Parts: sequence; structure tokens; C-alpha cells
Amino acid sequence: MAVNNEMIFGVRAVLEALDAGKEIDKILVKRDIQSELSRELFAALKGRTIPVQRVPVEKLNRITRKNHQGVIAFISAVEYASIETVVPTLFEEGKNPLLVLLDGITDVRNFGSIARTCDCAGVDAIIIPSHGSVTVNADAVKTSAGALHTLPVCREKNITETIKYLKASGLRIVCATERGKMNYTQSDLNAPLCIIMGAEDTGIPAEHLALCDDWVSIPQYGKIESLNVSVATAVILYECVRQRHPAE
Amino acid sequence: MAVNNEMIFGVRAVLEALDAGKEIDKILVKRDIQSELSRELFAALKGRTIPVQRVPVEKLNRITRKNHQGVIAFISAVEYASIETVVPTLFEEGKNPLLVLLDGITDVRNFGSIARTCDCAGVDAIIIPSHGSVTVNADAVKTSAGALHTLPVCREKNITETIKYLKASGLRIVCATERGKMNYTQSDLNAPLCIIMGAEDTGIPAEHLALCDDWVSIPQYGKIESLNVSVATAVILYECVRQRHPAE
Repeated sequence: MAVNNEMIFGVRAVLEALDAGKEIDKILVKRDIQSELSRELFAALKGRTIPVQRVPVEKLNRITRKNHQGVIAFISAVEYASIETVVPTLFEEGKNPLLVLLDGITDVRNFGSIARTCDCAGVDAIIIPSHGSVTVNADAVKTSAGALHTLPVCREKNITETIKYLKASGLRIVCATERGKMNYTQSDLNAPLCIIMGAEDTGIPAEHLALCDDWVSIPQYGKIESLNVSVATAVILYECVRQRHPAE
Repeated sequence: MAVNNEMIFGVRAVLEALDAGKEIDKILVKRDIQSELSRELFAALKGRTIPVQRVPVEKLNRITRKNHQGVIAFISAVEYASIETVVPTLFEEGKNPLLVLLDGITDVRNFGSIARTCDCAGVDAIIIPSHGSVTVNADAVKTSAGALHTLPVCREKNITETIKYLKASGLRIVCATERGKMNYTQSDLNAPLCIIMGAEDTGIPAEHLALCDDWVSIPQYGKIESLNVSVATAVILYECVRQRHPAE
């Protein structure tokens, strides 16, 4: 549950926050909202990647007793970057891009932990879908040990288009999936690269898998289910480091 | 805070649990306990590795309102194994032992998460010190996704002696430390091996470091502090896997 200073109540306040360029993670709207002002809000949201959920008014009342007028916005704990700015800038700076796309990860602690590892491994940016993904809140920032204050996070509306854009920009796309027949150490991770990690339960959607250059998996020898997604991401990222920075 | 069915109250009940061979993680004893029965308890504890803490009676009263008679024992969620049984058995079975010594790790979630990764990476046993280490409780078992039900855990009283025993048994001892000048990928991890991971804050004690064959570190390129200990353990264990099971 978000604390008060991470929320904005009321249509006009949310409109002003949008105008002021504040990063908003999510907006909850009363199911049957119909005021003039609310039409203004929907017009202002057009073309943006902010997820809007229509909910029963009781849900809004449970979140706050203040006069919310049918609209509550959750302020993001981080500022989002745009993938179409990040990728060209990396190439201009002469870097060998290393991106991580978290495709549907919903656990805030896993997300924070992955962000911390990404920072240590020299990842350039994290990509998340704007729908069906984690809310980048104060808990995520805390679990990341502060990494989310410096590591760019790109929130993209259409992940299929994002992957196509990355391929067109010259990045290899490697996904981690239990269906992968290639050991992750055999994939070329020293090229400009985006690694896709899937959701804890459902994995990576088929239409995203279809766009990947390599499907890799991590060998497992245990009696229990499988590696935690945050640990699996770390193992693959440090194979990237091993291939990119050979020890003398 | 442990739930009731993980505790035993009263001197006689604890004595009976010891006689019955129940695994006990820790015993709290009222600071000034002096009964005849309590002398019997201390006699029964002689030569065992169960940590006993003397505490003010108020601490015991906060844990339970039942008649604890100055003694509360915490039942372990797992059965401990002995390193002097585990190691010879591994060699007899023709295995190439891979052990992990968690030297002073106190965070239950980190411990559980490491146990889960150990299972996946094919680790044969985890070693923890009996003093100043995690309590292997229900939370640890849950975080381990059940790995702690099958993976042997050895709780050893004197870690210096344990390391000497492992060396005498032919194991290489490799520790992860920020002071290590060797990249972890350059250490020979394909020999019979024990990896030592240190506590989150204080690291590995100097007298243990002095016994290690290699001091290794994981390269880091980020702006924030460092890798989480559970992630660092995973990265090193999967380098063991890479060296031990080369992909075709």
C-alpha cells in the first residue's frame, strides 16, 4: 500500500501533475466517472503510456478517505527514460549496449533485487512493459539498494514493437526460457545485447519468444522446482560480464 | 518470532526433547537459573553444538506467557548432518564434492535463497557455524522453496577446525572476499571444493581467510555498494557449474 506522499487525489490535481511532467505509475478511475473534467483527463492521457484502471468507487474509498473525485494517481519513485533515447545515446558514446527486458515480472522485491544486480554488472538500462508489470515504488527502490535512482528504466507500451526496434538498432535478443535448448554459456553475449527474463509464473509470451535470436536455459541439478528469477538474471548477467571483460 | 509449535518450554520438557534426539537450534536460559534440574540440563548439553544464551527473565516472558521455568528451546525446522559423515560419504560415492560454508550469515531470507540456489547448482551440503549464524526456521525453509528439506546442512561448532578437516580431506578452500585479487572465473573450481561466503556486513574472519587456497572477488561496474550475498553466491556457484559441466 503506497503512502500518502506517493499519491495524488482528484481530477484537477492529476491534470496539473500531468502538465507539470510528473512521472505517474498508474491511475485508478471510478468505473462510471462522467464529469467534464474527467473527459479532459482522458484527453490528456491519450498517447501516453500510463496505465489507467477503471475500478469500483469502493476501491478508491479504501485507498483514501480524502475527496478523490473518482481519480487517484500513483506517483512513480523513479523517472522513466525512453528506449528511443537510451539506445542511440549508448551507441553515440561508443558503448556495447547491455539491456535487460523484464517481461511481466510483478514481484517488487525480485524487481528491486534485479535492478541492484544490473547496476553491479554494468547494465545500461532496464525495460519493463507499462501494463502487467511491477509498480516501481519505494519498496522497489529500497530493495535495489538505490540502484533505481541511477539506472535508467524504460517503460514501454508495446513490447513486441520495442523488441523489433532493438533488433533494427542492431541488438541481439537473447531470452531465458526453460524451453531453451542452448546452454546460456554458449550464446554470444558480447554483442550489443538485450536479455529478456520472463514472469515468475507464465514466462515470456510466445510472440516475444518468436523474435529472439537465442533461447537459452540455465542447467539445473536439484530436486526442487527452479532458480528464482532474480538469481537466474544474475547468473546470465555475470556470464555476459565474463564474456565482455575477460580476466587477465 | 517463532510460532508456538517451534518452541519447547520448561527444563524437563527440554531435557526430554534432548533425550528423544530432537534437533534444537538454540536454548535461551534465564541468567541466574540455579535449580537441580537446570544443572542436569547443562550436563546434558555438554559436548553438543547447541548454542545456549543466558538472558534476563524478561526476555523469556516476552516470548511466552506459559510457565517456562527459565528455559525455552527452539526446535529446528531441519535435521542437521555431520560434516565428518557427509564428506567421506561423498568420496565413497565417487562424487566431486561441492560444499558451501556460510560464515556468519544472519539474514534468514538470504540463507533460504542461497539454499534454493545450492540445490539447483548441485551443491552437496551447506555448512553453518553453530554460533552467530541464522536460525534454520520455517521462514528459511519457505524461502528455500523446500530445498532445506533435502539439502544436508551441517552445523559446526569450530569453523577453523572444520576448514582444517576439509583441507585434510583433500578439498580446495575458496573464499569470496572484496579483498580477493583473483577474478572468481580464474580459480580452479573443478576440484573437490568448499566455497566460503562471508556475513553481509563483517565478511569472513581473518583466521578463516588465512586457511583458504584462493581469495576471489566478483568484478563490479556499478555506482552502488555491492552485490547481495545471495546473488554473489549464485554467480560463483554457476561458475563452478560451468567449469564442472562444460556445455557441448
